[in-house]
Amino acid sequence: MALIVQKFGGTSVGDVERIQNVARRIKATVDEGNQVAVIVSARSGVTNELVARAKAINPRPDEREMDMLLAVGEQETISLTAMALHALDQPAVSRTGRQAGFLTDGAHTRARIIEITGGDINKRLDSGEVVIVAGFQGTTDDGQVTTMGRGGSDLSAVALAAALKADICQIFTDVEGVYTADPRIVPNARKIPEISYEEMLELAAMGSKVMQARAVEFSQKHDVIFEVRSSFNTNPGTIVKAEVPSMEDVEVRGVALDKNQAKVTVTDLPDKPGAAAKVFEAIGRANVVVDMIVQNISRGGAANLTFTVSIDDVHKAVEAVENALPGIGGGTVNYTGDIAKVSVVGVGMRSHAGVAAKLFSILAEHGVNIQMISTSEIKVSVAIDMEDAIKATQAIHDGFDLGA
Amino acid sequence: MALIVQKFGGTSVGDVERIQNVARRIKATVDEGNQVAVIVSARSGVTNELVARAKAINPRPDEREMDMLLAVGEQETISLTAMALHALDQPAVSRTGRQAGFLTDGAHTRARIIEITGGDINKRLDSGEVVIVAGFQGTTDDGQVTTMGRGGSDLSAVALAAALKADICQIFTDVEGVYTADPRIVPNARKIPEISYEEMLELAAMGSKVMQARAVEFSQKHDVIFEVRSSFNTNPGTIVKAEVPSMEDVEVRGVALDKNQAKVTVTDLPDKPGAAAKVFEAIGRANVVVDMIVQNISRGGAANLTFTVSIDDVHKAVEAVENALPGIGGGTVNYTGDIAKVSVVGVGMRSHAGVAAKLFSILAEHGVNIQMISTSEIKVSVAIDMEDAIKATQAIHDGFDLGA
Repeated sequence: MALIVQKFGGTSVGDVERIQNVARRIKATVDEGNQVAVIVSARSGVTNELVARAKAINPRPDEREMDMLLAVGEQETISLTAMALHALDQPAVSRTGRQAGFLTDGAHTRARIIEITGGDINKRLDSGEVVIVAGFQGTTDDGQVTTMGRGGSDLSAVALAAALKADICQIFTDVEGVYTADPRIVPNARKIPEISYEEMLELAAMGSKVMQARAVEFSQKHDVIFEVRSSFNTNPGTIVKAEVPSMEDVEVRGVALDKNQAKVTVTDLPDKPGAAAKVFEAIGRANVVVDMIVQNISRGGAANLTFTVSIDDVHKAVEAVENALPGIGGGTVNYTGDIAKVSVVGVGMRSHAGVAAKLFSILAEHGVNIQMISTSEIKVSVAIDMEDAIKATQAIHDGFDLGA
Repeated sequence: MALIVQKFGGTSVGDVERIQNVARRIKATVDEGNQVAVIVSARSGVTNELVARAKAINPRPDEREMDMLLAVGEQETISLTAMALHALDQPAVSRTGRQAGFLTDGAHTRARIIEITGGDINKRLDSGEVVIVAGFQGTTDDGQVTTMGRGGSDLSAVALAAALKADICQIFTDVEGVYTADPRIVPNARKIPEISYEEMLELAAMGSKVMQARAVEFSQKHDVIFEVRSSFNTNPGTIVKAEVPSMEDVEVRGVALDKNQAKVTVTDLPDKPGAAAKVFEAIGRANVVVDMIVQNISRGGAANLTFTVSIDDVHKAVEAVENALPGIGGGTVNYTGDIAKVSVVGVGMRSHAGVAAKLFSILAEHGVNIQMISTSEIKVSVAIDMEDAIKATQAIHDGFDLGA
């Protein structure tokens, strides 16, 4: 007998029929002899409806009241899911975030988990009940309703799995698992059976948005093994867990394409100590995260600085730099969104030398010009022209022999 | 400065615009120098939607899960109402039933209030905030969500007023107050400025369904003065409070028509001790409340028994009697819904003799045949043919000079 935490997102519980499907799936897991605790999200669309209603009343709604409002979405789903299990003669009981002991700090709309007591969940599981817990929400120690922000239900699931010392946390979603590349771009991309937390984080951060980074980070920190799998079929998905030696047998686990970057160029910056630092300080104060950076000295003695940021932040970044430049001593800012970032990821790079060199040579063979490069222990990324993005991704996937 | 509890029902908070209207009304009360705590219901229609979804999933949904589900309706409205007040620069904060300390027993879907602590409401009011509390819902001492059944928000409002020792509880509704008769039937019916709890209870029970009886009873027990008034205009409504001597100056406060009754007749019942008692025991076991009763002996030595029940319960009542009759020694059951009950109500009857006689003579003058009669200290009721109902109500209203 295993203790399993299952998480179903908003699409999986989108209507009455889907909730009944979810209930059948849960019951099947119980019938195989497991204890099951479940995290559910709000029905898809409900959160957006609530936000729209709030904004119609107040364009800048109070964050505490937003949490009070948004928490109703999950409270609806937990009770309906419990009722659906009762209809299958499966004992079940619902629990709000508060009732399940999801204690958070008071940072409304983006609360962080402090502790999960689990309430009486273990007792209920031991008595043969399925416990359905509201994802995304928690409570402060003085009883205020909080929510955890985007991807909060994934975090709820792995945190509950950690608290209950579950054997595995199954994340049911609308994809079949984590792939060697986006199958819409690379038709022979392959589902990866097992992947390490680090690889998952790098791939997710690069655009394979299967799960929010902080849920993966939480799993890594608390050693929660989780599986990303489809809620529409019973195929095995991708197991995400701590690195094991055999994972290094392949040099690259997957290739990720990120088209959501913008390139900012600062030219004619005075070539004096601290000039670049001041630029990045200004960007940091604007809460913009810089990804890749290239700096070089032009012939006239002035410096050029090129970096990438998320396309969503580019206006904030450019404005921050423009405001800072007069104090630094001059310079000009330009930007373009016509850029893509392609990355190869894999813990195997630690033992396989020459991954970067092989990547560059593949791109050169296909006539793709590299504008910027960044590397980490398990990742090599290059910035290229947007128009080369798909060709490059396919070539890299083939070149590293990742296909089925 | 007064402390006022205001209650707005589902129609009053039915959409974004109406919530904004409610917020303006609350703010106007604050601007007059009052502290205001507010009880709101779910948006009209929301509760029915949730029930429909539950029944689609499980025709007999678990009552605990129904409470979990239904409580979301009010949680949505409290946050939206708080946001609407913020948009008017009025500090405000929402509170669920649990946060406001509405402690109930564990009888899910029909919970009874045990105690209201109020949480931090007094502190918030003192700091200039409006506190918006979810009606209809509470919590058990072990943190389960409960709801109080039909009319629960009215009960929440008067109970909160009692706990906060509010000066008055204003119930905003879709009628202007309590009238001397239903204005749709009696065009010159008059709004009653002040009425006693007993009169309100008798009139409400007779069909003037302005407020649920248990909210009125709670008010009477805890001496909460409340006002029933319109949420669509600023006219004063009807104040409901403990009886004062001047209330006895008028012999009749109002006339009520109840078309929701059925008459059940049991003929040829053996004329022996205990036969009637056994009939009513059987009805009681079926949880049906009997209203008016007439018993008489026919020439052949058999007894006839006639009584009225709510039209909703008539099939249950008839079935119960039919099953009991063989054990009693025979008899035949018949029923008709073609009956109306007209009542005159007023604490003035205690000091004005002859109200019943005057009522009978008014009906006789208008050719209305009386089938059954029942009386209490402050009420006289008669059962008449449904076809006489409107004529009789108008005649009584005129005869007791209740019109404007």
